[in-house]
Amino acid sequence: MEIHHPYLLFLGDVPDALAAKTGLGIVDWRKEWCVGQYRLYGCNADANLPDMAPGEAAANGAKTMIVGAVNAGGVLPDHWVESIVAALEAGMDVASGLHMRLSDVPAIRDTAARTGRKLFDVRHSAERFSTGKGTKRSGKRLLTVGTDCSVGKKYAALALEKGMRDQGFDADFRATGQTGVFISGRGVALDAVVADFISGAAEWISPDADEAHWDVVEGQGSLYHPSFAGVTLGLLHGSQPDAFVVCHEPTRKTMRGVQTPLPSIQDVIDLTVRCGRLTNPAIRCVGIAVNTAALGEDEARKLLETISVDHDLPATDPVRFGVEAIVERIGKEFGNP
Amino acid sequence: MEIHHPYLLFLGDVPDALAAKTGLGIVDWRKEWCVGQYRLYGCNADANLPDMAPGEAAANGAKTMIVGAVNAGGVLPDHWVESIVAALEAGMDVASGLHMRLSDVPAIRDTAARTGRKLFDVRHSAERFSTGKGTKRSGKRLLTVGTDCSVGKKYAALALEKGMRDQGFDADFRATGQTGVFISGRGVALDAVVADFISGAAEWISPDADEAHWDVVEGQGSLYHPSFAGVTLGLLHGSQPDAFVVCHEPTRKTMRGVQTPLPSIQDVIDLTVRCGRLTNPAIRCVGIAVNTAALGEDEARKLLETISVDHDLPATDPVRFGVEAIVERIGKEFGNP
Repeated sequence: MEIHHPYLLFLGDVPDALAAKTGLGIVDWRKEWCVGQYRLYGCNADANLPDMAPGEAAANGAKTMIVGAVNAGGVLPDHWVESIVAALEAGMDVASGLHMRLSDVPAIRDTAARTGRKLFDVRHSAERFSTGKGTKRSGKRLLTVGTDCSVGKKYAALALEKGMRDQGFDADFRATGQTGVFISGRGVALDAVVADFISGAAEWISPDADEAHWDVVEGQGSLYHPSFAGVTLGLLHGSQPDAFVVCHEPTRKTMRGVQTPLPSIQDVIDLTVRCGRLTNPAIRCVGIAVNTAALGEDEARKLLETISVDHDLPATDPVRFGVEAIVERIGKEFGNP
Repeated sequence: MEIHHPYLLFLGDVPDALAAKTGLGIVDWRKEWCVGQYRLYGCNADANLPDMAPGEAAANGAKTMIVGAVNAGGVLPDHWVESIVAALEAGMDVASGLHMRLSDVPAIRDTAARTGRKLFDVRHSAERFSTGKGTKRSGKRLLTVGTDCSVGKKYAALALEKGMRDQGFDADFRATGQTGVFISGRGVALDAVVADFISGAAEWISPDADEAHWDVVEGQGSLYHPSFAGVTLGLLHGSQPDAFVVCHEPTRKTMRGVQTPLPSIQDVIDLTVRCGRLTNPAIRCVGIAVNTAALGEDEARKLLETISVDHDLPATDPVRFGVEAIVERIGKEFGNP
């Protein structure tokens, strides 16, 4: 699966920015891939792109329209179907992260068949995976892990890809969630894979590579999250990381969506090493990424300093202070390019 | 989902007993539910049941025909379709553990619709699960875990259900694999659930119950198996066991299907306790079930004695020596009925 850019971002008529977070996440990282946004009357999200309809976007080179918004209930409203059909008619492929398959809507399916355009449902991988094998592959891998869900694992991985490339590393972001798939044009939404194939899918996204090559793998969930730890463990085993970065949100008391208390950073390091050794005995932590958005700058710097000293690892907020310290550590531990 | 018995076991024309292991597993545990077997010319498996065709089975009270065999490739051969259609015409439901859905075959789907019979594809749960919540539920739970796949977790759970009931416990086997689903008439084939819902499905199969009630949950995979550990961890978190039994095969050197060495029993106890505490802080091991089929009786007794002393836990081979010692331990630790 390879989703071709440039993209037209379809934001529908969603009531707020949160409902368009997939689309906005794409713009954050791949603005140069986005020729415009296509909004319906009443849309309250704004990606700060030129507004354009499918015909104009296609004329401007757009290859794929991304359904980068989700309405209440996650279903595809009837009045969006017409917009998707229009994109296909204009010559674009359409990619969606909705739970519902585009191809389950007869008007969309029929138009795609007639025009020869592709439909991508990233929550429904068409790829047939093997079960994981656990065999060591060539090349190097870094995985972002978390004390919780939604603590910046995707952001940290993308920032590390960029930071490592800036220092001359041969590094590629590997997407494991839907927004990540749109940002990189490929990958697998792991949460949608059948349970038996989690680690197999993780092996598939980070295949054998040159010894100096780094896959920077987007983490999912947390080994301590009672809803999603199975996905996290399968991803850890399948991606067999040489290095991992712990992502953390310091103001959170309970884990997202449940009443379970947050684990400590040290808990996460220990359990990740213990479980990760199964497929990579040399696994080690190379840094801590902390989301300090809720703190003032002084407070943030102080917290990062404390966390860094406590764990004897570089600690940074990738958004606020960049990831240079972690990239430097990777170079020290594994060799610079 | 409730699959109604009595069953007619369809074994097709499979070349050997291994290809009919689902059907034979049902007979091992629920012979009283099986009115007969339906075999096609050339079948080399034998469940030691009266041979009968669908009409005769239905006249003898059979409510469901179980497709208890799998041909090479796991697909449904054309010449089996006719047999399935005949079962529906005779008034039976049909349940299958094949990867392919019965309802994807037009002749089967149409006949089921016309006759009003049900089709069960246990590898494709029709149930919509929630994500796991990790909240403590009432009642007690026991989970079988393993040093590897295929080390007797289902057998141990079924033997414990029986042994506990014999001692007056209110205990119910909870199936998490396809054969287990046929044996109990309900449950979920966890390996076929979408990754995000593993622990949620495990919560669903072992709901709130009387304080004295025991769910005896069939384990899956191993926390140390690089292919399936994600399923194992989600099942552990979702089933939130009070007690667990480690299942082990002492002659195995590497894990099933991969090159990874087998963990020790102690490794499995330690990691199960460590991870299981997330949803049940009081989790503890209550016994070890060892498959000693490859050993002579003296050797087997000696090995069990050593394992028992080493871990300060009852150790037994459920097939050879029963599970009384483990049931006794459960009574001591949690109270007898």
